[in-house]
Amino acid sequence: MSRPLQETLDPPSWEEFRTHSHRVLDELLEWLRTVRDRPAWQAVPADVRQAFQSPVPEQGEGIAAVWDDFRRLVLPYPWGNIHPRFWGWVVGTGSPSGALAELAAAVYNVNAWGGHQASAWVEAQVLDWFKALLGFPETASGVLATGGSVANLIGLAAARDAVGDTIAADGLHGQPAALAFYTSSETHNSVEKSIRLLGVGSRGLRQIPVVPDFRMDLAELERAIAEDRSAGRRPCCVIGNAGTVNTGACDDLQALADLCAREKLWLHVDGAFGALAALSERLRPLVQGLERADSVAFDLHKWLYMPYDVGCVLVRDPEVHRRSFGTRAAYLARLERGAGAGEYDYSALGPELSRGFRALKVWMLLKEHGIAKYTRLIEQNVAQAKYLASVAHRHAELELLAPVPLNIVCLRYCKAPRGKLDDVNREILMRIQERGIAVPSATMLNGRFGIRVAISNHRTQTSDLDVLVERLVEIGREVTNER
Amino acid sequence: MSRPLQETLDPPSWEEFRTHSHRVLDELLEWLRTVRDRPAWQAVPADVRQAFQSPVPEQGEGIAAVWDDFRRLVLPYPWGNIHPRFWGWVVGTGSPSGALAELAAAVYNVNAWGGHQASAWVEAQVLDWFKALLGFPETASGVLATGGSVANLIGLAAARDAVGDTIAADGLHGQPAALAFYTSSETHNSVEKSIRLLGVGSRGLRQIPVVPDFRMDLAELERAIAEDRSAGRRPCCVIGNAGTVNTGACDDLQALADLCAREKLWLHVDGAFGALAALSERLRPLVQGLERADSVAFDLHKWLYMPYDVGCVLVRDPEVHRRSFGTRAAYLARLERGAGAGEYDYSALGPELSRGFRALKVWMLLKEHGIAKYTRLIEQNVAQAKYLASVAHRHAELELLAPVPLNIVCLRYCKAPRGKLDDVNREILMRIQERGIAVPSATMLNGRFGIRVAISNHRTQTSDLDVLVERLVEIGREVTNER
Repeated sequence: MSRPLQETLDPPSWEEFRTHSHRVLDELLEWLRTVRDRPAWQAVPADVRQAFQSPVPEQGEGIAAVWDDFRRLVLPYPWGNIHPRFWGWVVGTGSPSGALAELAAAVYNVNAWGGHQASAWVEAQVLDWFKALLGFPETASGVLATGGSVANLIGLAAARDAVGDTIAADGLHGQPAALAFYTSSETHNSVEKSIRLLGVGSRGLRQIPVVPDFRMDLAELERAIAEDRSAGRRPCCVIGNAGTVNTGACDDLQALADLCAREKLWLHVDGAFGALAALSERLRPLVQGLERADSVAFDLHKWLYMPYDVGCVLVRDPEVHRRSFGTRAAYLARLERGAGAGEYDYSALGPELSRGFRALKVWMLLKEHGIAKYTRLIEQNVAQAKYLASVAHRHAELELLAPVPLNIVCLRYCKAPRGKLDDVNREILMRIQERGIAVPSATMLNGRFGIRVAISNHRTQTSDLDVLVERLVEIGREVTNER
Repeated sequence: MSRPLQETLDPPSWEEFRTHSHRVLDELLEWLRTVRDRPAWQAVPADVRQAFQSPVPEQGEGIAAVWDDFRRLVLPYPWGNIHPRFWGWVVGTGSPSGALAELAAAVYNVNAWGGHQASAWVEAQVLDWFKALLGFPETASGVLATGGSVANLIGLAAARDAVGDTIAADGLHGQPAALAFYTSSETHNSVEKSIRLLGVGSRGLRQIPVVPDFRMDLAELERAIAEDRSAGRRPCCVIGNAGTVNTGACDDLQALADLCAREKLWLHVDGAFGALAALSERLRPLVQGLERADSVAFDLHKWLYMPYDVGCVLVRDPEVHRRSFGTRAAYLARLERGAGAGEYDYSALGPELSRGFRALKVWMLLKEHGIAKYTRLIEQNVAQAKYLASVAHRHAELELLAPVPLNIVCLRYCKAPRGKLDDVNREILMRIQERGIAVPSATMLNGRFGIRVAISNHRTQTSDLDVLVERLVEIGREVTNER
């Protein structure tokens, strides 16, 4: 048989590729360094949007032309979350050295599923660190994931499958009783998505009301569990919040852990950002009890400011964790020695078989900066939120809509006619974004529209919050006068 | 309230950071350029493994020290899949320009969930391209995922939820009948993992036997469906393979599409790597019928050689797709204008809310190289597999264990006593890896141990396969003589 033609994706000239790469790096770093000089957000113009309706590129245009396209069509229109005045939803900032770590991971380009390679030990190392930081035992299991959503999914799958050995084989239809999960009405939507994906159905997720500080009402929780038991349903798991996305409220995790021990229920904690409050001695009391959970999910791309995407789940019982995701397949036959050998198989701990090397950036960044610095940054964001709350509290034209236990401030402009407040504040928020001033986001709290400022941003300075207050009030007056 | 101390993760000196970054880039590129000079794989020494049992880094060690640690502890011990002679499992190679695109994505660091930002249009663009390339209608839905496993999960969730409106709310326990999914016994383990995660239970996945060329036995499939119907179970979905992981076999997708139309079943195609055979006019007949599927999952980090991780799922019916993953939440309240506005919400199409900007590398790489080049590379890998098969076929000491329709060759050394063949070949395979010669992987085919060579590697040259054959036979004799 004749030898096939040999082509490759390696560059025809490494020297030219090197020159191009250094230029790209310089331009990107300069763009990052000057982020404060640009608007926090701007709309994508119609002609740019149009450019993304091109036919399939049959022939290549080459690396230089693509870079120009990127600079023209993509670079000017980010979401804004690297900007010092982006406080929408709960979104992280990333960092320059985080980006370098991602470059290293992409050149290195392993499939970090496990096996015998450095990445397996790097991931074990960072998981061990998080166990220590969150008070989990060394024997616990864990895995990195794309973020809190999938970390929640993994924890909740383990909770479901802990109910009995037969779920993996027989599924939920074959179970004697319908399962019930419990969480507060303030819980992140990824929990409901997970519950549906797991086949439990959204009716199997009881949304327990909250008390006025937005923490789960424990009496209501107990009532719901008792009701389900007497109706023949099978209570399975309580999902506590370490920092709700709306207001940063933390459920009473000690009380939930007590209750779960008493009722023999799995305790999962959604600690997307709030779990990391445990790093700070000062903030730790807010999430006390977290260390007693059966599983905890949290993001590293939010309050540890790592590049997208990376999250983590810890599961106390390694066997239950493996039960949900482990399988055996002929082409995965393990040998005693070689590249596929060894004790690590992260693909048996989450939905993915092929896995990016997320652990690398985590390992490099925690080592570079140290936990003490991350802790100070988290405390800084909380102090900034409390600063904003105190300014808003004293301001005659602003009102706070919720307590500020962590890094989230919900406020609104209040010097407008009562019936128009929601409408006025929606308009204020849109103009703040459109004018590139800042990006807070929207929420509804007790039926009232709120402007939500979630500070998980290491570039924010306190003066940025002064800018927000000043312009918010200015636009508030402007909008009120128009109506 | 006093103003909090201001700290950041930005570098104290951008100039020093720039210098460090250029050094890092140079070292990484040099490492990549010289990959062929290194062993395909090597074990991680004990002292290196030991180094990953360090306590939590309380204080930072700085960026230069971390880089040295990386070079010493991580860089020498990759899995090997960027090496020209890595053909284990089905794993991609990545590429130099892919790594640069990842750098850009990490500096840019958006949360690519959707909304009004360039990333939303970039993803729409690449999804449109894949719809066109795989023959799906423009109106189809789709989303990028971490890889084939999660892409399969998404497609199968849609299949499950297409059964009826009530699954999302009531779950599977509340359904009148148990669901049944059908696939061949050669199917990738991510399908079984998904079926369990979805609450269907592994017994709900019927593993249909294959005919001798490892394609699903259609008569057995029809029998299983009829049997389930008469037993009161609800047939739901057939999962076809476009390229099985074991041998690259492609089920008869036209026949499966006909059967699914007749039986009113969802057709999902796991096309992890094989779906991309559709790019090639010459190979397309193997996967004909793919374009009639209700959903198809495939990887881009395998046979498009993109950096880890990225895969894709296309779903013909956008409403069904959204049904599985869409939710509404107060803090996600959409405004008419601003950063959260717009038509795109990828978080309603998969498990993740926060999402990395995977679409950027896909967009940049497809534009840089063009589809024609990717098609030639895919054909090159298939030609290489056929070359290896023909060499093995003619070689008196080697035998082929399966047909070679695509890029996978299963073979073994056969000049050993019959009862020792499995044992001898296991040992050969381990030595080939341990000596850094090459990384094929293991499988079992019809109860026989096989050495599996899956070529999805743009660095492989035909001469690399000659090296494999030569050393395999040499080690085969060596091992046989020892026993």
